[in-house]
Amino acid sequence: MSTQKPSIPKGTRDFGPSEMSKRNYIFSIIKDVFQKHGYAQIETPAMENLDTLLGKYGEEGDKLLFKILNSGDFLNGLDPVSLVAAGPGAASAKLCEKGLRYDLTVPFARYVVQHQHEIEFPFKRYQIQPVWRADRPQKGRYREFYQCDADIIGSNSLLNEAELIHIIDEVFRKLGIRVKIKFNNRKILAGIADYIGQPEKITDITVAIDKLEKVGIDAVNQELQLKGIGVQGIYKLEPLFAIDGDSQEKLVKLRKLLQDSPAGIKGIDEAGQLFMLLEALHIKSEMEFDLALARGLNYYTGTIIEVKALDTEIGSICGGGRYDDLAGIFGLKDISGVGISFGADRIFDVMDLLRLFPKETTTSAQVLFVNFGDKEARFCLGMLAKLLAAGISAELYPDADKLKKQLSYADSRHIQYVALAGENEIRENQITVKNMVTGEQVKVATRELVEWVNRNR
Amino acid sequence: MSTQKPSIPKGTRDFGPSEMSKRNYIFSIIKDVFQKHGYAQIETPAMENLDTLLGKYGEEGDKLLFKILNSGDFLNGLDPVSLVAAGPGAASAKLCEKGLRYDLTVPFARYVVQHQHEIEFPFKRYQIQPVWRADRPQKGRYREFYQCDADIIGSNSLLNEAELIHIIDEVFRKLGIRVKIKFNNRKILAGIADYIGQPEKITDITVAIDKLEKVGIDAVNQELQLKGIGVQGIYKLEPLFAIDGDSQEKLVKLRKLLQDSPAGIKGIDEAGQLFMLLEALHIKSEMEFDLALARGLNYYTGTIIEVKALDTEIGSICGGGRYDDLAGIFGLKDISGVGISFGADRIFDVMDLLRLFPKETTTSAQVLFVNFGDKEARFCLGMLAKLLAAGISAELYPDADKLKKQLSYADSRHIQYVALAGENEIRENQITVKNMVTGEQVKVATRELVEWVNRNR
Repeated sequence: MSTQKPSIPKGTRDFGPSEMSKRNYIFSIIKDVFQKHGYAQIETPAMENLDTLLGKYGEEGDKLLFKILNSGDFLNGLDPVSLVAAGPGAASAKLCEKGLRYDLTVPFARYVVQHQHEIEFPFKRYQIQPVWRADRPQKGRYREFYQCDADIIGSNSLLNEAELIHIIDEVFRKLGIRVKIKFNNRKILAGIADYIGQPEKITDITVAIDKLEKVGIDAVNQELQLKGIGVQGIYKLEPLFAIDGDSQEKLVKLRKLLQDSPAGIKGIDEAGQLFMLLEALHIKSEMEFDLALARGLNYYTGTIIEVKALDTEIGSICGGGRYDDLAGIFGLKDISGVGISFGADRIFDVMDLLRLFPKETTTSAQVLFVNFGDKEARFCLGMLAKLLAAGISAELYPDADKLKKQLSYADSRHIQYVALAGENEIRENQITVKNMVTGEQVKVATRELVEWVNRNR
Repeated sequence: MSTQKPSIPKGTRDFGPSEMSKRNYIFSIIKDVFQKHGYAQIETPAMENLDTLLGKYGEEGDKLLFKILNSGDFLNGLDPVSLVAAGPGAASAKLCEKGLRYDLTVPFARYVVQHQHEIEFPFKRYQIQPVWRADRPQKGRYREFYQCDADIIGSNSLLNEAELIHIIDEVFRKLGIRVKIKFNNRKILAGIADYIGQPEKITDITVAIDKLEKVGIDAVNQELQLKGIGVQGIYKLEPLFAIDGDSQEKLVKLRKLLQDSPAGIKGIDEAGQLFMLLEALHIKSEMEFDLALARGLNYYTGTIIEVKALDTEIGSICGGGRYDDLAGIFGLKDISGVGISFGADRIFDVMDLLRLFPKETTTSAQVLFVNFGDKEARFCLGMLAKLLAAGISAELYPDADKLKKQLSYADSRHIQYVALAGENEIRENQITVKNMVTGEQVKVATRELVEWVNRNR
């Protein structure tokens, strides 16, 4: 076989031991909090049928799906000329039946409908798995990345929103990331469209409003005009943009402006109730009602949530919202759900940047037996077996390499103790134990080693 | 959008909450043992470049790779007629640059070569990730399944083999599965081919020998003849098949027969030494030297290991061996490695069949607050927050559904305590706690609930 220079597909990554232990630290905190709140884990296949995935993420999303070439004689029965003439979209439909998971929400909706008769609602599930998108790779954007989702489906209660925000609050406090949790309600956005008399323009309006912070009011007004919002409407929007105060005050002012829109009032009621529930739960993170928050408009129907890290510019690290008909695409009507998704990669970047990882996320062996040769190694094996049986992490260096190399191995792996047995030790049935941090060393009787390590770790 | 009847690709599976907790139970035991022995976790991307994967698993393996259709205008520049005329193999090479991981060994070899300058050898890594194969699905064989691998690379010492067998022994004892650990050495198989004077026939000979247990000696002899082994050779093999006794005795007898093959003697020495090391480690599982064990001949060069569950017919649940030139394919020569792979799906099947899972692998909430309406729910929120802050798993049922439905929710999730607050409780600042197993119920002052649960869990 010829020699290959190894590489991996662009936009994908290898995770080495130190990245893995940091990533596991994040995952295990998220997992523990999910479980503590009663969420149960599920997993779905990496591959879904393409008809499950297509049409769920907009036209752009369809293009970003990774498709799996059919196995076997996949060309059988295909007319080559019309295949190529059809263009990539139609051709891929003939060549591929399966695609890689693009997010965890659509597979979850598919799961709920497919297993509806085994599920007792309300169903609280969490799911931590990679997803794949054929996006152009760039800093912080990958073609394979993990999502950590929690959803509750089969209940309309705002207690669910409160619970998920409680989870967000707890996860980020445990990770040590200071966050602002922004929320809005899709019904309020509908109310605004009602208010300016162009309810059909809700998406254009909210997409424009969403940019307010970034581009300023003039650019937003320009975009609104381009999208066909009349001068009257733009004029009516101005006081909305000017609403200030804390979240409660904003809601009071908004209620006056949107008083003629039943949807708007409903949204304001929901936002207010949610706020009360969060107070009763003593949520400690900063909460902000944000009129300009307009993510996930394709499917969110109620509360919208977005979380920003306060001490970096990295942007959104968690988000979610309520959807009323996600399972409906697969034939299960009127099942409301609400969910959140943690972006593990961005959380990793924030923690790395702010040096929030604890010093010792790596789980290394506690004891390394140095290998001075066959006889010495054999002498150590019995002790090694006893340490391991006692639940102490330990290893015997496999080769009789130079001591320096073996100590450097121990050092780079943050191993606490190095155990050395030469001729003297073997004769005296002892072992010399060296503390790799302090440099101290003591002789311990072989039969007392387990006890000694337990006492000194 | 039209309604779809949801399904998943054949050969793939959804894992619901109860399967997930059983699977996590298996994974966490394997992980803990790997870590205790000093193995560090890595992860590699699901997608590898096809030139990393192709040619590594034989012709059959190439066909079983899942290939990813190139993104964007993947037809650009392709001549349709010659594309189709080329046949599926050549055509897929034009349509696809990437494929899904087929095992964890080749990606690991690629990882080691790509990151050789960051790695300090010997490098002990473990990896637990799904792999994908376009095999015909059948009972117990899936198109997506998890492998759990541990490898040590950069050391020739037999201590590594001993360590991996120690890990196998420990994992299966912790899982409660009684196993027989079979081992052999590829050099002994080479010695046998030397012994009958046809060293070039080593693969044919071992493939035939491998079937001995299944088909009997006559069928094996027939196959050997078909493969061009002379009558003399077959005659010489007979005493080999007749070798009996315990592992040590077998090795002694074999040493006499293979005395003229240096490779054979080397293999016997290694097997004997390994046996001694395992005795020094007090391995408790049954060990058996098995001359007919011939797995993974494409890449194994020394020790070969296979593990069978004793109390079922499910077959091999773990296997491994030493390979001397796996990284060589990617340009890093003379780096010897040895590894094992646990088959999580088969281990799951064995444990399910033999009812070896502990009763409570599911991690459910300990307390469910019943929801009698807005006011009562609000009264519970403060207590809920306190329980959660104290690390107690708890939830508030989100809707004021019928009590029966809420209790059934608690019951099916094995929740230990149900907490009820009606008008009386609110007035008295108390909460009624009902033990879902014994049916007992007591009233607890709200401020004492955390302490009460901690005392009674």
